[in-house]
Amino acid sequence: MTIPSPSSFDAEHEPMSLGDMDPQEFRRYGYQAVDWIADYLTNIRGYPVLSQVAPGEIQQLLPQTAPHAPESMQDILADFDTIIMPGITHWNAPGFLAYYSMSGSGPGIIGEMLSNALNVNAMLWRTSPAATELEQVTVDWLRQMLGLPAPLFGFINDTASSGILVALAAAREAQSDLAIHEQGMAGRTELPRLCLYTSQEAHSSVDKAAIVLGIGQENVRKIATDDDLRLDPVILEQTIQQDIAAGYRPFAVIATIGTTSTSSIDPIPPLVTICQKYNLWLHVDASYGGAAAIDPEMRWVLAGCEQADSLIINPHKWVFTQADCSILYTRKPELIKAAFSLVPEFLRSTDQHDESIPNLMEYGIALGRRFRALKLWMVLRYFGQDGLAARIREHRRLAQLLRQWMAEDPEVEIMAPTLFSLVCFRLHPQNIDDENTLNMFNETFMNRINANGHFFLSHTKIDGKLTLRIAIGNIHTNEEDIQQLWGEIQRKKTEVKHW
Amino acid sequence: MTIPSPSSFDAEHEPMSLGDMDPQEFRRYGYQAVDWIADYLTNIRGYPVLSQVAPGEIQQLLPQTAPHAPESMQDILADFDTIIMPGITHWNAPGFLAYYSMSGSGPGIIGEMLSNALNVNAMLWRTSPAATELEQVTVDWLRQMLGLPAPLFGFINDTASSGILVALAAAREAQSDLAIHEQGMAGRTELPRLCLYTSQEAHSSVDKAAIVLGIGQENVRKIATDDDLRLDPVILEQTIQQDIAAGYRPFAVIATIGTTSTSSIDPIPPLVTICQKYNLWLHVDASYGGAAAIDPEMRWVLAGCEQADSLIINPHKWVFTQADCSILYTRKPELIKAAFSLVPEFLRSTDQHDESIPNLMEYGIALGRRFRALKLWMVLRYFGQDGLAARIREHRRLAQLLRQWMAEDPEVEIMAPTLFSLVCFRLHPQNIDDENTLNMFNETFMNRINANGHFFLSHTKIDGKLTLRIAIGNIHTNEEDIQQLWGEIQRKKTEVKHW
Repeated sequence: MTIPSPSSFDAEHEPMSLGDMDPQEFRRYGYQAVDWIADYLTNIRGYPVLSQVAPGEIQQLLPQTAPHAPESMQDILADFDTIIMPGITHWNAPGFLAYYSMSGSGPGIIGEMLSNALNVNAMLWRTSPAATELEQVTVDWLRQMLGLPAPLFGFINDTASSGILVALAAAREAQSDLAIHEQGMAGRTELPRLCLYTSQEAHSSVDKAAIVLGIGQENVRKIATDDDLRLDPVILEQTIQQDIAAGYRPFAVIATIGTTSTSSIDPIPPLVTICQKYNLWLHVDASYGGAAAIDPEMRWVLAGCEQADSLIINPHKWVFTQADCSILYTRKPELIKAAFSLVPEFLRSTDQHDESIPNLMEYGIALGRRFRALKLWMVLRYFGQDGLAARIREHRRLAQLLRQWMAEDPEVEIMAPTLFSLVCFRLHPQNIDDENTLNMFNETFMNRINANGHFFLSHTKIDGKLTLRIAIGNIHTNEEDIQQLWGEIQRKKTEVKHW
Repeated sequence: MTIPSPSSFDAEHEPMSLGDMDPQEFRRYGYQAVDWIADYLTNIRGYPVLSQVAPGEIQQLLPQTAPHAPESMQDILADFDTIIMPGITHWNAPGFLAYYSMSGSGPGIIGEMLSNALNVNAMLWRTSPAATELEQVTVDWLRQMLGLPAPLFGFINDTASSGILVALAAAREAQSDLAIHEQGMAGRTELPRLCLYTSQEAHSSVDKAAIVLGIGQENVRKIATDDDLRLDPVILEQTIQQDIAAGYRPFAVIATIGTTSTSSIDPIPPLVTICQKYNLWLHVDASYGGAAAIDPEMRWVLAGCEQADSLIINPHKWVFTQADCSILYTRKPELIKAAFSLVPEFLRSTDQHDESIPNLMEYGIALGRRFRALKLWMVLRYFGQDGLAARIREHRRLAQLLRQWMAEDPEVEIMAPTLFSLVCFRLHPQNIDDENTLNMFNETFMNRINANGHFFLSHTKIDGKLTLRIAIGNIHTNEEDIQQLWGEIQRKKTEVKHW
């Protein structure tokens, strides 16, 4: 390892012309990017929703060798259009109905433009007071919109997967007699085995968090669900009692409002009672479904959540805010801080600020925190609660409309309740009885719709039955899109039947 | 819990005028935002670097009640200027010399604008093939620029803190005989105690990862450093041997290239030898320092890293790319995948794609993944390796220039080597001998500089001595800024001396 001596620098040498892109050049290409975006939003229905490229096709069009000399922004933007765009799956298209659609919006784009120009790190209050304070205010605005009681501490994470990990780390921290924070868990013969509970329908992020935290995937008890795919509280309590009898220490329950598969809703009030009785942390994953409560008609979906220890809602799912924006609310911020706060010397402020305002880096894994509240602030104000509620209500109306059409078609089987804006169904032609054949039929049907480019659907399995999901939630999706989808469903159904 | 019946929807009702901001309106406010950004970048030297607001001041200017009715974008942007801007600490200002400066650039802003308009989730290859493939290509371009040998798998995380957690989860997974993934660690009497090693100068994210993973903070062995604050390999090996003798199982070593406090460099080649001998995972945290290797003159800083198991470099630190953009490289992607891969039914593709192209959600905690490669691609092409290297070299030249001036001032004590572009120093007037008084003197001096608004410095402690840090790395910082800083240092020094 040879360290060049400082004398190899010519300190007197004239500095080269360096720095950033010239502001005038930025203005020119910035306008061009705005025009591109405005055109994209205008023509969004013209793109195939699911990208039709073959694996490796984009890579082959890109140079494999890193660029040495600077290139012009004009060339880069041209390549964006010709090389990158064909490889985009258009989450922003009204025909994107797969997974849960994740909808950004105009004010969110503008919020992120400004946030990117500032490029602040909201790790400490002082490293951008407005970023921390605006985050606290916007998160509280959303709390009000959802009808949750104050005070409720909240902050923005990248994803619900990170948020669940944070919540369960706090739940583990709450077992303070075990000193896991300091001593860890491996090889400590005095520790009880830990376990947590969720439903068979819970998101895989629960397993992932349990694996990362060293709880182990086998210690995630997947509680059976009722006919509507809701966690069964009676079976939950029986399982907890069995675990306690077997020497385990149960420490958390994760319930879901709007499961990923079918958007079912776990019964929160009885789960609250059980968690209080056995001293368990109750985390509610309302990443998708929670947003519905912005519409006062839908407040009931969060019933009981005011007593949960933590709750996640993702504005980047159904609040028309660009990813990433996932909010973790908690009634026990002190336990999250206990789990994550480590303030090294280089981040200590010598001018101690008001303790009532948090340093948000102390509430999670990431030290660096983007100024994500800016886009959320712009979205919440631009649409207002009234505008957001009207859009959410419209998506639910469209889902019910589609469901009505399906109910009238004897070849369509509706597979789950539609509590939000997700419709779960499968085709069931009268001449097919065999479940395997039905699964293949529906898979072929889905792949044909997806290959056609106007719509992108995804699937799940319910009791082994391949079930198609239509998740309405994109801000651009309107009644005409749903009518066209229904026409496409009918055409492809006929096609596959005669195949 | 009352679920309204679907009949409460009037499916025949005319839909309201909903949807997103009209594209023409977006164009108007998009232009306005571009103009604002261009002006901001032009006038960046006119803002106080460290925000001067009092705690709670921004919150008090914001309505505490959530907005019900929609508001105009014009009003929102006006409030951004008058309410939010005074609360911004300008990470983008050339006078931001605290922590490690984190520098975005024009092409990065444009990349993020387009990424935000697309708002894709790059969780699976199919959910945007271009996002996954461009990520693989750009990460490989950077590998080439750094002079690291192929093949080397890499992907983008939000922060190095998340990346270290991922790397150490893989290191824990490598202890496959322990079945931690499945069974966890608590209450398993057959498990050995686990421990890992890093230097006293390592970043707090190592402790945080160990806490989250259930290893425990006490099982992070902080190895002593030599006079240049580098991890001492001899003490490391002795400690490993003692731990093994005491029944521990060592499983990882974390080395740093460019420590947060003083930018020291741990000696990688001897650490590689030790890790191979004891079968330990070697993770290298080169978040800040690694970028220097883009300049061929500085390739030596990564010597030995080609044999590390994992390595992190943050383009959002010194590669002029907007946050968040932290790259984790690894020679053992299969172990990261083993630690994190959980593919639920709803994310399975029925059209299996080429196995050689990864689904990047399988390599970390977050399921949702923003299209972060786009900004990196634009930055790498716009500046090219030559342009990036020239800027990095210039920052190093400016640091050496400042150091020369300091060396000529008998009242300035240089506190650490300047291997990159960080200068660590303290004032040491000849009439002050007492260490406590010196610490107070330097703290007062730093707070005065920061309060003045032209520059923002941070501090660390070396052997209990309060040490000031000047971290040059912002793309706008030029020789004139450093001259003005030196003038300010002289003026404030005199002021505090006569205080």
